[in-house]
Parts: sequence; structure tokens; C-alpha cells
Amino acid sequence: MATSIDTRHPLVLDEQAQDLLFREARSANAFTDEPVTDEQIAAIFDLVKWAPTAMNTQPLRVVVIRSDEAKARLLPHLAAGNRAKTSNAPVVALLAADIDFHDELPTLFPHFPGARDLFVGDEATRADAARLNAGLQIGYAIIGIRAAGLAAGPMAGFDAEAVSREFFPDGRHQVLVAVNIGKPAEDAWFDRLPRLDIDEVVETL
Amino acid sequence: MATSIDTRHPLVLDEQAQDLLFREARSANAFTDEPVTDEQIAAIFDLVKWAPTAMNTQPLRVVVIRSDEAKARLLPHLAAGNRAKTSNAPVVALLAADIDFHDELPTLFPHFPGARDLFVGDEATRADAARLNAGLQIGYAIIGIRAAGLAAGPMAGFDAEAVSREFFPDGRHQVLVAVNIGKPAEDAWFDRLPRLDIDEVVETL
Repeated sequence: MATSIDTRHPLVLDEQAQDLLFREARSANAFTDEPVTDEQIAAIFDLVKWAPTAMNTQPLRVVVIRSDEAKARLLPHLAAGNRAKTSNAPVVALLAADIDFHDELPTLFPHFPGARDLFVGDEATRADAARLNAGLQIGYAIIGIRAAGLAAGPMAGFDAEAVSREFFPDGRHQVLVAVNIGKPAEDAWFDRLPRLDIDEVVETL
Repeated sequence: MATSIDTRHPLVLDEQAQDLLFREARSANAFTDEPVTDEQIAAIFDLVKWAPTAMNTQPLRVVVIRSDEAKARLLPHLAAGNRAKTSNAPVVALLAADIDFHDELPTLFPHFPGARDLFVGDEATRADAARLNAGLQIGYAIIGIRAAGLAAGPMAGFDAEAVSREFFPDGRHQVLVAVNIGKPAEDAWFDRLPRLDIDEVVETL
């Protein structure tokens, strides 16, 4: 089906935005020197905060690494192949799940006073919910970075336990993804990798 | 910071698209009779397939429930409060993680022939990777539904094991989120819930 119809036509989002966020956006592996500003970071997370999470849990927490000192604490925990590009990125965002997100529910889900209690004492279920909803929010954040005209270089190749311990010393957060952010350099891309066809992904009943 | 600057200005994405995808989009709880077409479903997943996953794993698998027969198999497994709205939604998409995504890696990550072997024999790690990357893809899919001018009503309130067994009888998939999709009815929204301020979410080092 995907090959026989014009799949841009049924969309309401304009083609330029489709290209900016999805079709032409690529995961960058090299960056220019152009800085990423605090205003851009604020704009990204102020946009994507509106996207939904289960019971409005919003478990995503972010450490934006900008200084050389903070980068020096991160680099040894990255897979070797991720170090050079991260070292050269203007900023790196550590995207983490807050395992104790439920403490915010009296504020975030006020019409159901029992919301927090649902998660007390069952840390395994809570951690699963934190990771799933932070995962959704990481997806939103990558789209938001592109909405700011920046390239995202998401990475899972790092020692997650060590990075979590280093940057969230309370032991209550799990870093799931690290994302380099900046303007792509000319040699920023590898060849585009294949995608599964819709018939391999979607079944209709 | 978020309150003292115009956070729309640093974004490149036009304001209409910001509103469509994030600021004005809401999780719908009631839908009109207007159908959701196969072409819209294809367009959504043909757009969001381009967004990134770790090692290009793309573990998301989708069952789109359109028929009364398939809906009747789903409804008993939903939390009571989710049944009426799901019954009235034109389609419901079950968004699942394929635990055996690694079998596609020789095709999806061809420049690294050892990719599949990394995940063989360690099903717990593989399931974690499947859930995290499917989580990112669920985030992308919710944005894609909105890009088609439709409202998403994502739900986590269901018996995930029972739904996974019913719709993925191979036992190799975990349904993570179910999403009602359609045109929102007039009474589709609850009051908008509060969001965490950027200073509660983002720390800069």
C-alpha cells in the first residue's frame, strides 16, 4: 500500500514541516561550532512538554551538558565510537527517567487524589512506567530538537548505570538516551539506513 | 526562564505546525463518526518511520483495530473507564514492541554484520531495548496522528499481558500503549492538566 499511494496527501501538516521533522531530518554525527543557546533549549522543552504521558506522569528529566568540565565527566562512560562526536557537539542532553515521578502526581493529576498511592511500594512497576513514558518523551524531544532547526544525534551506546550515577547521584534516575545537539557539519551523515515497509509493521483487523 | 522569554521565537517550525502537533493538540476522549481511512493510517506510519531508533532497530509493531469483531476481542481487557470511548473510536491502534526485532538487523543495520548476534541469548536486555525504542516510536506515532489532522487518545489502562496474547499469539510481542484515533467530538476534552516547568525538568551543567 505504501508504494501505491501518495502518502503525503492525507497529511494536514505542511510538507515543509514533514521534511523538517521527519523526511529530511537525520541523526547527525558531526557538528559545526555554532552554539546552541539556552533559549533554544528552553523553547524545545517548552514545546514538547505539551505532548501526552500516561496519567500525566511526565517522568523525563534532562541534564544539558555544555561545559568542558561536565563533558569530561561524561566522555569516559561512552562507547569509544561515540566519544569524538560527543566531544565536538555544542551540547549533549542526558535524557533520564525519574523513578520517583509519582511524588509529583498530587500536582500533575489533581483530580484523582489516589494517583500517587497507586505507585507506592511497587518500585518495579513504577520503574517500568517511568521508562515507558520517558521513552515517549524522548521521542517528542527528538522531534522538538528538529523543530528548533537543530540536528539531534541520539545515542544508546554508553554505560547507563555509570552515567546515571555520575549525573543523578540521588540514585533515583535512569539515563536512557544521550543526545548530541547542534548544527550539522558537512560530513554529518552516514548513508540513510532502510526502514521497514508499512506492511511489515502494520496489520489491520 | 520559560516565563521570561518568548519560547516560540527560537523555533524554526512554523507556529501553525507547533500548535497542530503540540500546543493545541489534546488527548481525545470522544470521537465523531467520521471514518479514519487506510490511506491516513499508511500516511502516518510512512511519515514517522523516518524518525530514529538505536541501531535502526525499529521494534514497533502495530495492530489497527477497525472491525466490530476485533474490537469485541479488545474491550474486555480494557480498564472499565476506557471501554466506552474505545468502543466509539473509529479505529484503535495497539502499539507493541517486537522482542525479536534483532532478526531484522541483517537488513536494517547491514554495515555491521554482528548486530543481530549482540542480542541473541540475552532476552532481558533485548526486551529492554525493544521497549525503549518502541517507546520512542510511540512518541513519534502520536505526533504523526496529529500530523494527519486526527486526535490521538493514548491509553495505558488495560491488561497488557492479555491484550498481547490476544493480538500477538506468537508470544513475542508486548503491547505497550493503545491509541484511539479519530476526529474529536465536541465534548472530547477534559481540562488541560498542568505541566512541569522547565526549571523542574532541565538542569544545565
